[in-house]
Amino acid sequence: MIDSEQLEANPKLYLFLPLYYTLWADFILTSTEIKTMEELIGELEWLKEEEKQYLKSYLDPNKKINPKELKKWESIISEAQKEGQHKNLTSLGKELVKIHGNGQSEDLSEDTINKLRETEAKLGLVHNEVNYIFQQGHRTITGEQKAEPLFDPKKLTALLDGSQADLIKKVKDIIGDESFKYPDTGDVARQREQVLQLCKILAKEGLGSWAFPKEYGGKDDMRGYFTIMETLSYHDLSMVIKFGVQFGLWGMSVFFLGTEKHHQKYLKAIGTLQIPGCFAMTETNHGSNVKGLETTATYNHQKQTITINTPHILACKEYIGNAAVHGQMATVFAKLIIDGTDYGVNTFVVPIRNEKGETLEGVTIEDNGKKMGLNGVDNGKIWFNQVVIPKENMLDKYASINEKGEFESPITSDNKRFFTMLGTLVGGRIGIPRSALSAAKSGLTIAIRHSDKRRQFGPKGGEEVPILNYRMHQRRLLPPLATAYGLHFALQYLTERFLNRSKEDAQEIEALAAGLKAYTTWFTTATLQECREAVGGKGYLAENRIPDLKNDTEIYTTFEGDNTVLMQLVAKNRLSEFRQEFNEMDFFTVVNYLADRAKTSLTEKNPIIVRKTDDEHLLDFEFHKSAFEYREEAILSSAAQRLKKLIEGGMDTFDATNVSGHHLVNVGKAYIERIVLEQFQQQVETTDDEPVKNILRKLAQLFALFTIERNRGWYLEQGYMEGVKTKSIRKMVNQLSWELRQDAVALTDAFDIPENCLAAEIAKRVS
Amino acid sequence: MIDSEQLEANPKLYLFLPLYYTLWADFILTSTEIKTMEELIGELEWLKEEEKQYLKSYLDPNKKINPKELKKWESIISEAQKEGQHKNLTSLGKELVKIHGNGQSEDLSEDTINKLRETEAKLGLVHNEVNYIFQQGHRTITGEQKAEPLFDPKKLTALLDGSQADLIKKVKDIIGDESFKYPDTGDVARQREQVLQLCKILAKEGLGSWAFPKEYGGKDDMRGYFTIMETLSYHDLSMVIKFGVQFGLWGMSVFFLGTEKHHQKYLKAIGTLQIPGCFAMTETNHGSNVKGLETTATYNHQKQTITINTPHILACKEYIGNAAVHGQMATVFAKLIIDGTDYGVNTFVVPIRNEKGETLEGVTIEDNGKKMGLNGVDNGKIWFNQVVIPKENMLDKYASINEKGEFESPITSDNKRFFTMLGTLVGGRIGIPRSALSAAKSGLTIAIRHSDKRRQFGPKGGEEVPILNYRMHQRRLLPPLATAYGLHFALQYLTERFLNRSKEDAQEIEALAAGLKAYTTWFTTATLQECREAVGGKGYLAENRIPDLKNDTEIYTTFEGDNTVLMQLVAKNRLSEFRQEFNEMDFFTVVNYLADRAKTSLTEKNPIIVRKTDDEHLLDFEFHKSAFEYREEAILSSAAQRLKKLIEGGMDTFDATNVSGHHLVNVGKAYIERIVLEQFQQQVETTDDEPVKNILRKLAQLFALFTIERNRGWYLEQGYMEGVKTKSIRKMVNQLSWELRQDAVALTDAFDIPENCLAAEIAKRVS
Repeated sequence: MIDSEQLEANPKLYLFLPLYYTLWADFILTSTEIKTMEELIGELEWLKEEEKQYLKSYLDPNKKINPKELKKWESIISEAQKEGQHKNLTSLGKELVKIHGNGQSEDLSEDTINKLRETEAKLGLVHNEVNYIFQQGHRTITGEQKAEPLFDPKKLTALLDGSQADLIKKVKDIIGDESFKYPDTGDVARQREQVLQLCKILAKEGLGSWAFPKEYGGKDDMRGYFTIMETLSYHDLSMVIKFGVQFGLWGMSVFFLGTEKHHQKYLKAIGTLQIPGCFAMTETNHGSNVKGLETTATYNHQKQTITINTPHILACKEYIGNAAVHGQMATVFAKLIIDGTDYGVNTFVVPIRNEKGETLEGVTIEDNGKKMGLNGVDNGKIWFNQVVIPKENMLDKYASINEKGEFESPITSDNKRFFTMLGTLVGGRIGIPRSALSAAKSGLTIAIRHSDKRRQFGPKGGEEVPILNYRMHQRRLLPPLATAYGLHFALQYLTERFLNRSKEDAQEIEALAAGLKAYTTWFTTATLQECREAVGGKGYLAENRIPDLKNDTEIYTTFEGDNTVLMQLVAKNRLSEFRQEFNEMDFFTVVNYLADRAKTSLTEKNPIIVRKTDDEHLLDFEFHKSAFEYREEAILSSAAQRLKKLIEGGMDTFDATNVSGHHLVNVGKAYIERIVLEQFQQQVETTDDEPVKNILRKLAQLFALFTIERNRGWYLEQGYMEGVKTKSIRKMVNQLSWELRQDAVALTDAFDIPENCLAAEIAKRVS
Repeated sequence: MIDSEQLEANPKLYLFLPLYYTLWADFILTSTEIKTMEELIGELEWLKEEEKQYLKSYLDPNKKINPKELKKWESIISEAQKEGQHKNLTSLGKELVKIHGNGQSEDLSEDTINKLRETEAKLGLVHNEVNYIFQQGHRTITGEQKAEPLFDPKKLTALLDGSQADLIKKVKDIIGDESFKYPDTGDVARQREQVLQLCKILAKEGLGSWAFPKEYGGKDDMRGYFTIMETLSYHDLSMVIKFGVQFGLWGMSVFFLGTEKHHQKYLKAIGTLQIPGCFAMTETNHGSNVKGLETTATYNHQKQTITINTPHILACKEYIGNAAVHGQMATVFAKLIIDGTDYGVNTFVVPIRNEKGETLEGVTIEDNGKKMGLNGVDNGKIWFNQVVIPKENMLDKYASINEKGEFESPITSDNKRFFTMLGTLVGGRIGIPRSALSAAKSGLTIAIRHSDKRRQFGPKGGEEVPILNYRMHQRRLLPPLATAYGLHFALQYLTERFLNRSKEDAQEIEALAAGLKAYTTWFTTATLQECREAVGGKGYLAENRIPDLKNDTEIYTTFEGDNTVLMQLVAKNRLSEFRQEFNEMDFFTVVNYLADRAKTSLTEKNPIIVRKTDDEHLLDFEFHKSAFEYREEAILSSAAQRLKKLIEGGMDTFDATNVSGHHLVNVGKAYIERIVLEQFQQQVETTDDEPVKNILRKLAQLFALFTIERNRGWYLEQGYMEGVKTKSIRKMVNQLSWELRQDAVALTDAFDIPENCLAAEIAKRVS
């Protein structure tokens, strides 16, 4: 085109060059586009016939243009663009005529210019875009975003750590040291040994016996035990679980279910890891339904012994940590039989290996083999073939056999006794979610740091943009970051409630622990999934640690109780709480009362509120609180109503509960979400440092709105919000995520995870 | 209680025994309960004062009852229950008085009985439940469900396999044979060698060159190539990806981007795996944004050579399959430079190792090391330091250097040429989702078989129930099973469209492939996650294969294009499709037209339909189709409107696209969901065998309603449905899942996955 005679003869044809270049370089010429251009050419009367033919010839998609020619067009146009910021192709064409036409640009009529502009619009070549096709340095709002925190991460760390700061520092000093190496994966046997060695170091540092009484080498500090679990979880998770098996499950079962004699005999040796042990509850045939355990413990009064036996092959203990290789003893859950009468599940200390590691007579152990993760923990199956233990090996805090060989217990019912015993072990359901949350924090730190640096795509003629500047990417990572903060405070609350529990609120706290365990571990699984995808191929490489974080925590949703089962338990507890709250009424009255109340508040809902979408309202803590509370209450009373209706209609309770299964899980979730929000808001309100308070407020708002958005189907169904409001909420979630982008890296810095624990290449900082 | 004098003296007190037993055995006595009982006792005038005191003494929660005594109560009550099916505790108490009271039951007044019944109700001890506390054999609807297929799985298999049945059988014969072993995991080097050996067997069987022309040892059958990828994916996925790298990426790049001379030189050796090779496109700094690749290929006309060079350390090729160990050559994507002019990205065959496996001069290779999965594939990084190759190594189907040393191409624009080249490789985006779907099918087969057998929990006094009988569990597994069927048909459709593509519909098919790749791989990730959790601890053990399925497919959402990026590309394509469809109008006119149309159809929505909830309507294909189409169209036009509004408001296009990122992803999803539904329904309509047709119809209904339920927030926001309708849809999803439970195992049988490929202990069948 540019070398042609036509152009030489009539430089006004330069007017078309930017348009033609754009069509050739970026478009596949469609018949519409060709037609549009032909019309333009037809309409310009000042074009000579041969010029028209010449211009039309370039509209033939089969015309061969030398790529080199196209590049020459580009450089000529780019030169012209330097002369002024032209915001459309026509103006740029005019500039070219000015440069090449020796004053001919003066001849271009306004009509010509308008016709070209119209054509541009018809072709969809709109607005500023053109400004950037031919020049470098295209700056955009998206491109400008960067890490610029508005608060001091150290102050936020201090807030997160609270009274536990010293202990956290102690633990971080141990695991944060370069010498504290991650175990090698690949060879399971080697990995297990390395993990054992790490646990021995921790025991030596006194961390294993931390919760035990001082006379057995401990600090009598249960709060500290949870802090330790949480902090250790920034490092290898096999180590954490092995630690939990030894000191939490095996140790605590002896501590809580045994009495003085057991404490004296075992606690010190457990705390120092002299006696590695197991917690042998789960059986192959009874995982979630532990009440149905089949292992028997038969009492022989004459010999003062108890015989432990596995009645059939699928009644073996399974997935038992420390069983496959290291365990020497086990707390075994078995049905106690005295004189042919079954006294329900009780617990017994049973030796399984000698100090040389040889399996004892009557005990058969099989390795559970390779797992998806946590391969540093040696899980196994155990069968007992008439293994005889002395009577005193029965852990007799809640039940015992008296001198006469009779069963005695302060808790008459087998059922109640069993659940009381399990209740004392609820600490596992606090340690696990706190560990899970640490893993999620590690994943978020790795993913957010990488996304802050990693650049991909960008505006035409501009630099590539950090991927954390993309709204989609912010949506993936920032609501989980906000939720992680909320869960941190909720788990602190759970811990305090647990430490200060009384007989009265024990059941409520058990439900809270079960619910938060389920909610947090599901959150961790989902968050690490987002982190993996958000960092793409890098997230698939072992060197970036996300694979191990994912695979190690994958089973958290199952152990210490399958999440779906737990959430249904939580719901059942809520239903009965309900009943107790209104203790003047019977069950159905309560249900009816609440059903009515729900209806009233529904009809009473202010028609202005359901459509209210101003920012102030959307960001208001009170609005969030009401929305969460309303959901919790409404969903609970509707579950009650539904069960009532089904049962009254003649359905079996078991069937009715099954039919309502999905509903019940949502009852549990709504309850937990309300708790998390409440704790989050309370934390904001009690924070003094303004910048920290501000950032926490924004996180709490994001958590609240993101959660409402996720449940928007429900809110809309209920008429609690209208579409105009849920749409505004979605926009606000995007907006808050966008605003938090500048604080995101600092918010992960505030987790204060030791650099060598993070252990991800992509998260490394040049120091 | 039962040994006491009081009872001897007044056997009418037996009336209270069932109530007291229930309170003691199952309840923690609350103050309400105590009060309720005390009131009852107070009201019964025939009780003597000492009897009242005696009864009240059992309401003291601190009273010690011997557990043995409680068991005795139980056996006495159970005996009474045998005498007749008593549906409440009062009636049972009456029976006890009859047995123990020598005719005293006659003395119990109607008033007494009524008062007891009221108390029972107040305590929430309702209905039939009582019937089962004291007896065995409690049967429930939940317990009765079992596998009883209504169709012949073999007929469904035949339908799924269609014209490819023979080839599928051939591939299954190879991989289904006991001798075709899974590689050992753990040792990466060993695993890689074993996978290479498996690929050699496949090459020997002629599967590698299947798509190549006959003259190079192939079958000229691209359809068959996809069938092979899909069927192989029932076995080890490292093998599948290595197969895909060698024959799909390396082989097809030479086939599609090269010309006769390259085909003659390489194709046969590639198809037989004589020359293991790589597809070296992705660079560390440019993953998704491939257009930004930095590797250079500089032409030297004098020497007739091209020099390949990596300009800086982060411009290396990364994640390249076959690179770390086995690859001898690579198709390298690099910017061609001639005389200082950059002609965009072109492709070149570059030798990287000699036959002995030694890396060639100028080439540096680093192992990508251990990955989350697919460790049988040797991914690595490659740097080129001025590596010289002959000019003829340029793959010159779309661009070449002529005799004069000038660049020539039928496609003038670098941009268009690059995307045309990538377009020819779109087959990868068909092979990958088909492979992903096979993995999901394996996971579903394992999880559903296990859930059909595994029993956990049950009604009081009844057997434990298979976990697949629980509604929550059905909800987890059956909608994904239905979706898997839908995706099967959609991927068949995509394959046919691809095989019959023309220049006109090439872009549409590229978008379809990108969208189905993203949708299917996300589906697989989510489904395998459900499968893992659904089978609990068993799903965590390597022996049950779910861990490998999960970890191997985890990267599918990233490779062949990050899913989020792909979905946005799909959306952009849909927006422009839009424009072409209405080719009389310009872009804005189209947008306005559609916005108006959307508004109209919204207001025109029949107010009866938005609240219609009868079964016939909910299950109606037409309803589903309209709902999906409406969503697709409305979401697309609202995205267009939004972009328009933002850009017209002065926002940069790049920023506007960023702001709309989330919206655009939903545009892509809605489009794909409509396609899947359409293909699913069409399959139902063209199926002859009645039972198969019926089961497919039910699956299509479940897929449709489950998808609508997932998007219910959107439908409610739009006013397309009201809450009463979305609630009914949720119930119908539960109902369909419940109904399909009996067919679930057979529906996985119909996938016809060879038993030794499944390779999961928990899925084993006793033959």
